[in-house]
Amino acid sequence: MANQCVDTATLTDIFYALADPTRRDIVSLLGRGPETVSVLAAPFDMALPSFMKHLSVLERSGVIRSDKVGRVRTCELVPASLNDAERWLAEERATWEARTDRMVAFVEKLHQENTRAQGKRKRRQ
Amino acid sequence: MANQCVDTATLTDIFYALADPTRRDIVSLLGRGPETVSVLAAPFDMALPSFMKHLSVLERSGVIRSDKVGRVRTCELVPASLNDAERWLAEERATWEARTDRMVAFVEKLHQENTRAQGKRKRRQ
Repeated sequence: MANQCVDTATLTDIFYALADPTRRDIVSLLGRGPETVSVLAAPFDMALPSFMKHLSVLERSGVIRSDKVGRVRTCELVPASLNDAERWLAEERATWEARTDRMVAFVEKLHQENTRAQGKRKRRQ
Repeated sequence: MANQCVDTATLTDIFYALADPTRRDIVSLLGRGPETVSVLAAPFDMALPSFMKHLSVLERSGVIRSDKVGRVRTCELVPASLNDAERWLAEERATWEARTDRMVAFVEKLHQENTRAQGKRKRRQ
């Protein structure tokens, strides 16, 4: 099938990671810069173990990475992973738009041929 | 949080629908035009009930729609749903790129100030 430039398993993990509002909010927050887990978790009305599970899904998918120094874990976004997802969607859109363009061209050609045929009929009458 | 132009539940459903290689392949096939379920299912080494479950996830998310005439069900892509997902990713990228641009500008300013300060020190010596 088309659009196989990115590893299929990776895309599956990325889209799964984004299929949750909390995880998308974490992505939005990390888009502004790296952040410690405790600062990241603060705005969420959620127990820390549940929040850590969301971070774990994001990290396994490659959407974020984290590093622990002493007792402080800091997370940061991996923009390349989101680019992969965006590229897949853009390629699907391109396929669909190319099809639509071909359909428009076909309908226009049909319309021109009909108009020409009507003109010929009128001249004969 | 930022990037709330699309309904959160809808985005969750769309990303979940795309978090599966079979469902992404169905999206790729439907990008070329509407197709009946039997034609769509043919390339997949999968029992029909399992395939129908994938179609059901895609339809519930709004990524595809289907219509039954007699005994034949035809599916088609709903490109607006993929556009929503693409827009969300593009907005996240814009946030991240704006931050990177600010960081580059900050580092450049710091470098210019250092160069100027070094120049002054050299003139004094």
